[in-house]
Amino acid sequence: MSPSRYEKGLATLGKMNGSAGQEILKKLKSISPDFEKLVIEFPYGDIYSRPGLDLKTRELVTIASLTTLGFAANELKAHLNNALNAGCTEEEILEVILQMSVYAGFPAALNSLFVAGEVFEKRKKEK
Amino acid sequence: MSPSRYEKGLATLGKMNGSAGQEILKKLKSISPDFEKLVIEFPYGDIYSRPGLDLKTRELVTIASLTTLGFAANELKAHLNNALNAGCTEEEILEVILQMSVYAGFPAALNSLFVAGEVFEKRKKEK
Amino acid sequence: MSPSRYEKGLATLGKMNGSAGQEILKKLKSISPDFEKLVIEFPYGDIYSRPGLDLKTRELVTIASLTTLGFAANELKAHLNNALNAGCTEEEILEVILQMSVYAGFPAALNSLFVAGEVFEKRKKEK
Amino acid sequence: MSPSRYEKGLATLGKMNGSAGQEILKKLKSISPDFEKLVIEFPYGDIYSRPGLDLKTRELVTIASLTTLGFAANELKAHLNNALNAGCTEEEILEVILQMSVYAGFPAALNSLFVAGEVFEKRKKEK
Amino acid sequence: MSPSRYEKGLATLGKMNGSAGQEILKKLKSISPDFEKLVIEFPYGDIYSRPGLDLKTRELVTIASLTTLGFAANELKAHLNNALNAGCTEEEILEVILQMSVYAGFPAALNSLFVAGEVFEKRKKEK
Amino acid sequence: MSPSRYEKGLATLGKMNGSAGQEILKKLKSISPDFEKLVIEFPYGDIYSRPGLDLKTRELVTIASLTTLGFAANELKAHLNNALNAGCTEEEILEVILQMSVYAGFPAALNSLFVAGEVFEKRKKEK
Repeated sequence: MSPSRYEKGLATLGKMNGSAGQEILKKLKSISPDFEKLVIEFPYGDIYSRPGLDLKTRELVTIASLTTLGFAANELKAHLNNALNAGCTEEEILEVILQMSVYAGFPAALNSLFVAGEVFEKRKKEK
Repeated sequence: MSPSRYEKGLATLGKMNGSAGQEILKKLKSISPDFEKLVIEFPYGDIYSRPGLDLKTRELVTIASLTTLGFAANELKAHLNNALNAGCTEEEILEVILQMSVYAGFPAALNSLFVAGEVFEKRKKEK
Repeated sequence: MSPSRYEKGLATLGKMNGSAGQEILKKLKSISPDFEKLVIEFPYGDIYSRPGLDLKTRELVTIASLTTLGFAANELKAHLNNALNAGCTEEEILEVILQMSVYAGFPAALNSLFVAGEVFEKRKKEK
Repeated sequence: MSPSRYEKGLATLGKMNGSAGQEILKKLKSISPDFEKLVIEFPYGDIYSRPGLDLKTRELVTIASLTTLGFAANELKAHLNNALNAGCTEEEILEVILQMSVYAGFPAALNSLFVAGEVFEKRKKEK
Repeated sequence: MSPSRYEKGLATLGKMNGSAGQEILKKLKSISPDFEKLVIEFPYGDIYSRPGLDLKTRELVTIASLTTLGFAANELKAHLNNALNAGCTEEEILEVILQMSVYAGFPAALNSLFVAGEVFEKRKKEK
Repeated sequence: MSPSRYEKGLATLGKMNGSAGQEILKKLKSISPDFEKLVIEFPYGDIYSRPGLDLKTRELVTIASLTTLGFAANELKAHLNNALNAGCTEEEILEVILQMSVYAGFPAALNSLFVAGEVFEKRKKEK
């Protein structure tokens, strides 16, 4: 029997997600268990579980998108951690954010850069 | 003597850019030569000429950002061509656009997908 | 045996969707069958199939969201038709779009209003 | 003599608005009395006072729009309260926000969901 | 007796608006007379009729905002004409659009620049 | 020998920028010295150093753009200070923000207005 999308999503999440993402999901579940189920099933069970792109690239394009949105600091924190866990270097992440100044403008890029600064700092202290 | 940013930008553009991008730049120059100069100097001379990320990844994160913006069909066309010229496969590009449904929503992702469909079709015919 | 999400999505779509939406899905399938599958499974199989809101209200909040995005003319066309098929009146739809001038600004609201004008006109002729 | 738009706006606001909205307006007035006047006259005197949509639906489409914007936490708080005061249930509101994941993406929907969680919690405590 | 907001709006519009804006308003009125009334009353009767900023500056900040939105080509056309009618030079307008590359990104700035190119061309031919 | 873009950017910044902007740049430099260099070179060395628009107008169109983005509170703070330093009055700034309600919607305009309220207050206390 093949695993359910929820199980598949949890397995994918388990490989990539650090504590920042787990906290978001827990808080989410306490407000809307249906929404938490959908977040695990659709983005993680359906999308991140697909072949066709390695996880590092998936995380970098997500960081590009969240930077472009401009208002997604919480999800960005989670994905900056995911990206580092997946083997992206700080330099690669900064390079993506810097490049976003061209497409999303400097305010959006700077918003992300300051979130990245916090995440890098926090991980350095936790080591 | 080191090359000017404009020369560096042109050299970087020369490696990546197909006819779609060239037409945009020509039209741009006829309206504002200063703006054309800035487009070659800043995005291409300053950003795409940087080390730290390979061109394939740079193009994929750009496609993610343009998809998230939702309104950038013309620039997206140029960068879809750049991405294919840089060695990205159609499958990788579709994978990035599909993943954007999670972050930018389905309307933004579908807008990009239809532009990608046109670009892929046009290149097939031109071969 | 319970129906698959794809079957559920198709059934929900069948109840609501007119020709504008069908054309989008067909074109989508020709570019990326995987994306078409996801569009039927997630928005229609998972979301529109949920209880908790009647279809009229679901379509009105979708029109509000697409108006706010500002760049989603194609999907808006499909959902304006869906809304009318679901029993919304032209007056209710115009009322939602007009209200969006407050939250999304006049340019976004006007973009939608002109799309609505086209859709209403086309349906009048087809009768 | 018919009431002025400001009086009409105040009357409409009086029917719908809880303390969260009142605080925003008070703070607004202290910075720019002209802007406060316009907020009462245009959105409330001109738009929410119109017939053609019941207040519940007006609040749900506003929540859809504010969710789609992604950056409007303060106004969202006020309108979540308005929606509940107008007779929307928490379940209906969550349903609208969840549906927005399709159109505005998950980060925008999650931003709103967490604001909704706070508002629901606060109202539970105040009872 | 003081003029109504509609009359005030029409008078303000009369001073600033060329044929591009008039066509938008006519088309708008044919779809929703109420919306046309609101467009004349609120932006023109209430906002552009205010003292405190000269019309040239009002048009330049509007061009900045429409450029930043990225999807407002039709309204931009009208306001580029308004700006030129109000005494802004083509150079000042291009300067504003170029500066927007910093805040809204290059795709948004380029979208506007190409609209400006069309408007400038059309006016040259009509002379 | 002509000054480098970095020197030109610093000189332009020196004329316009108060402590709010300096703090952002310092924090930026500690995370990514390359990004700080680009911020000084491109927006300040290349754009704000151009002739063709006086600094007051440049700051007002920037405030219009940052208001339209909706999520740029930190950069807005810096530019509100720049604008006041450049000779804009509080009234002119409020007028621009108020006008943005038409194009970007009330939530975006209100976000900016509350940031402006804070900045005006802080400067009053510091005098």
